[in-house]
Amino acid sequence: MTGSEPRPDGLRPGEVSVEAPVRADAALVFIGRIATPWRRRADCPRQGDPADGPECRLHLDPLWTAALDGIEAPVRLQILYWMHEARRDLVRLAPRGHDDSRPRGPFALRAPTRPNPIASSIVALVGMERGVAPVLIVRGLDCLDGTPLLDIKPWRG
Amino acid sequence: MTGSEPRPDGLRPGEVSVEAPVRADAALVFIGRIATPWRRRADCPRQGDPADGPECRLHLDPLWTAALDGIEAPVRLQILYWMHEARRDLVRLAPRGHDDSRPRGPFALRAPTRPNPIASSIVALVGMERGVAPVLIVRGLDCLDGTPLLDIKPWRG
Repeated sequence: MTGSEPRPDGLRPGEVSVEAPVRADAALVFIGRIATPWRRRADCPRQGDPADGPECRLHLDPLWTAALDGIEAPVRLQILYWMHEARRDLVRLAPRGHDDSRPRGPFALRAPTRPNPIASSIVALVGMERGVAPVLIVRGLDCLDGTPLLDIKPWRG
Repeated sequence: MTGSEPRPDGLRPGEVSVEAPVRADAALVFIGRIATPWRRRADCPRQGDPADGPECRLHLDPLWTAALDGIEAPVRLQILYWMHEARRDLVRLAPRGHDDSRPRGPFALRAPTRPNPIASSIVALVGMERGVAPVLIVRGLDCLDGTPLLDIKPWRG
């Protein structure tokens, strides 16, 4: 094992984990799933591009169809989603592919690894398919195919 | 009862609820609490002001102290928090105190009422108290005193 390979516990040099709480202080309900071109974490771009990124599709649970009323393309939206493959127990991270890779806390980084792995992205809404199972077509995401969707908010940035 | 008063189910005219799922697709852990000057929802400002808003204090659970390493004031942060008093079952909302109060879906509004009541605010970090129970002092929040804290991310807007 060299210094640059992950250790058996999956940590990289300089990374530190804690015994994270297993309690549920609040419960999330997935409101849909996000379809993207990226099947593995290594394939995901570091940051989405609302202008030139590929189209991704937000497949909404039909229960929430009416909750979209009032959204019209083109507009910017803030999307919250759940990074379901991320570890939640690290308090010091060695960011990969970062200009400055010295280890630091997850609250000083936007990496997926964090106590509550909620991501927030600003996207461009480029189309909508209304119907029984509504779909929003957006540019600007960088997440895995199949990522659970948590929230959609208007963005006036 | 007039048209402008809440109905016995708590809904205003034009509002629609659904039977929201009670399942937990994922569990949140509160990483701390937010101390603000506002004790009732009616007292909260409509939007926080990172330049001139009052100082609010993010009291972090000591478990996550090291997770702050690398954050230095002054800087902008994105704060995610849990709007614990919000209803989660409405698919059409009559926004209060909005220029345009016609009912629309929660995904077309930034109101607390939504399936997953996660708020996102951009704040100015004006100070930090390190120690056993770390505190971040910020401007730009608009939430109730005692609101549970979910996440802290750097913001490069």
